[in-house]
Amino acid sequence: MYHIKNNDFYCEEVLLKDLATKYKTPFYVYSLNKLKQNLEAIKKPFLDNFPNGMICYAIKANSNLTFLKYLSQNGCGFDAVSGGELERVYTIQKHLNNVVYSGTTKSYEELEKAILYDIFMINCESISEIKHIAEISQKHNKKVRLAIRVNPAVSPKTHPNIDTGNKGAKFGIAMDHFLEAALLIKSSELLSLQGISCHIGSMVENEVYYFEMLNQLVDLLELLKKHDIFISHLDMGGGYAIQYTQENTINFEKLFTHYKKVLEPYNLIPIIEPGRSIIGNVGALVAKAVYTKQQNNRNFMFLDAGMTELIRPALYNAIHKIVAITHSSPLSVSYTIGGPICESSDIFRDNAELYATEGDLILIENAGAYGYSMASNYNTRPKAPEVLIDGAKDLLINKREEISDLWKTEIIHDL
Amino acid sequence: MYHIKNNDFYCEEVLLKDLATKYKTPFYVYSLNKLKQNLEAIKKPFLDNFPNGMICYAIKANSNLTFLKYLSQNGCGFDAVSGGELERVYTIQKHLNNVVYSGTTKSYEELEKAILYDIFMINCESISEIKHIAEISQKHNKKVRLAIRVNPAVSPKTHPNIDTGNKGAKFGIAMDHFLEAALLIKSSELLSLQGISCHIGSMVENEVYYFEMLNQLVDLLELLKKHDIFISHLDMGGGYAIQYTQENTINFEKLFTHYKKVLEPYNLIPIIEPGRSIIGNVGALVAKAVYTKQQNNRNFMFLDAGMTELIRPALYNAIHKIVAITHSSPLSVSYTIGGPICESSDIFRDNAELYATEGDLILIENAGAYGYSMASNYNTRPKAPEVLIDGAKDLLINKREEISDLWKTEIIHDL
Repeated sequence: MYHIKNNDFYCEEVLLKDLATKYKTPFYVYSLNKLKQNLEAIKKPFLDNFPNGMICYAIKANSNLTFLKYLSQNGCGFDAVSGGELERVYTIQKHLNNVVYSGTTKSYEELEKAILYDIFMINCESISEIKHIAEISQKHNKKVRLAIRVNPAVSPKTHPNIDTGNKGAKFGIAMDHFLEAALLIKSSELLSLQGISCHIGSMVENEVYYFEMLNQLVDLLELLKKHDIFISHLDMGGGYAIQYTQENTINFEKLFTHYKKVLEPYNLIPIIEPGRSIIGNVGALVAKAVYTKQQNNRNFMFLDAGMTELIRPALYNAIHKIVAITHSSPLSVSYTIGGPICESSDIFRDNAELYATEGDLILIENAGAYGYSMASNYNTRPKAPEVLIDGAKDLLINKREEISDLWKTEIIHDL
Repeated sequence: MYHIKNNDFYCEEVLLKDLATKYKTPFYVYSLNKLKQNLEAIKKPFLDNFPNGMICYAIKANSNLTFLKYLSQNGCGFDAVSGGELERVYTIQKHLNNVVYSGTTKSYEELEKAILYDIFMINCESISEIKHIAEISQKHNKKVRLAIRVNPAVSPKTHPNIDTGNKGAKFGIAMDHFLEAALLIKSSELLSLQGISCHIGSMVENEVYYFEMLNQLVDLLELLKKHDIFISHLDMGGGYAIQYTQENTINFEKLFTHYKKVLEPYNLIPIIEPGRSIIGNVGALVAKAVYTKQQNNRNFMFLDAGMTELIRPALYNAIHKIVAITHSSPLSVSYTIGGPICESSDIFRDNAELYATEGDLILIENAGAYGYSMASNYNTRPKAPEVLIDGAKDLLINKREEISDLWKTEIIHDL
């Protein structure tokens, strides 16, 4: 999302070091042009194969309202996983008729909200959830469209924390409970079984896992047919890998052509739920190197951003590429890059080779997804601002939190 | 922090299920009485041995202003690790003259704030930091009291993420740079070397690691003496384990008696930095079981609290005891307890034996430390409220966030 011209780093037409002066570090920067490219890269092969297919952006990757509004205006629906995410979508488009709602633990209040907002489809993850929905639909005498999210027992060899489709994972309804769920939905007058949904995990690097998943979904379609149940939508989830370092990415042309070949006889509208693949490489985290020190044969560089701004390295041992935007060191140094948080896990990575030292600006790549959305206020740190670049313009799409806002909900009692 | 009477769960004199009705789940509950006990359990043996010793509560464990005010009024100072934490302390006591400031990456602005507020002592973690402080002290012509935080190469066999004192860790100044740091401070007219500071890690279960640390600190004291440098304070950090499940805890009597024996000849004022050991078992997280399901030979129970409220299981594989407050199941079931977050790592634990099912109230113990302070808004979830019990009174010390407040800093642009 950046390019280099005469040794200077630009996001589109804006100098990153000028942005750092204007907004102070740390901050997240995003390229609108890159967002457009990513959306097109998925949209074209998907809609070529499925003209009425639905792209439901996975809000949890990055829920900034400016992005949601842009995606809404450019033909996307949404994959929401909480009442809060439903409210975000409602805020920007005033309806939920292109929203699917996933999640293992939708509360009564959240389900009620989704139903009263006439949500497009609720992806149910347990028999109990279906019963809750039946109860709420009766209470309000409202019809509700459901999908059964199944747990397909496909394991795409990714990090255990983001491998959602394996047999032991918490997500979805087990294959052997699928028919029970379908018949339960069929038995309720106000519920309609509109789809089957499935998500095999995150950072899936090979189409073959989706092919495996699809084979299992086809078995379920055949099973439904035997019971005279016909659905209209098939939600095949997301999880498409992006390239943090050496990862493979998904060939969308190949994936969607295969989907079409298999699904053609069923006349189904497919849904996909990309998140990271749309927003991940659109954004970066810009920080300043505050200190360096040599210690026990390691060269440490400490940034003013840490696990509070990007927790993926601490949580998943994820590795992000790190580059220097300014270069005050005449020599390349191999750094262990840490953050300001009082936790040993607050290390971004080892062996980052940089011509940089104290005072230099550092960029952490691919922070567009699961960066700001997973940010915390640990160590009483205000969340960093988000800046979107559109050509020569910089748009502040999220202000830096004020320190005093961090305790605005607290009430001081004298004990 | 709770007790059971006639099968009902109480925090002090308040029924936990009444609290759940009043505040809705999830919420954090704390016992003031337990806090008093914990403080006393450290204070008595510490002050018995060191009448003018300083207990500097580690704010990062739980930074709620009501707790900080109580601790301030009851003889504690503070260990802060950010400008935000300095502001918290200033908010409740209007001075920082009992505050030590630690952290690898104190920014220029944060250091300036600390110095202008006349902080008691800054624990320096790099030579570069000392140079920054020297510059700021000259700019404002203000004297500044420093300690050198050393990296003692003591490894207390704890989780790698919270093991801060081992040789490879990012914290402190390496032993072989200690003298250089001391002489640098001595050479600056406005800086005074007031102390040495050290923190060997978190969840330290045996005093012997502190004894090992102290031996190394004594070597440094002797080294300083050779250079005619005399300090007044020795900050020996915290990290005292609490009992989550089978852990050992520290015998404070034994620890502080040993400290006294070793330090007697040096006439030093000791500082300790307990955090978790004061607040950890004071608090619990109360949640509701929203759904259960059987899947692939596992019994899942899904709570309305997850890694957004308590990230320790996901981040450190930490195990917290989980008990049922209400018991709607006639049989005990061995559950895998998950939360509502769309992440496979959002699992609190396996094999929790509970006489409970959907609709029951569940309590996760020892969530007083690193619970709310590490909370996030991931999946657009509002942070849960904190309630402090004082006898028969329930005091709301932190309100639940409003969903719409979660995007109050965002600015929607039309693109």
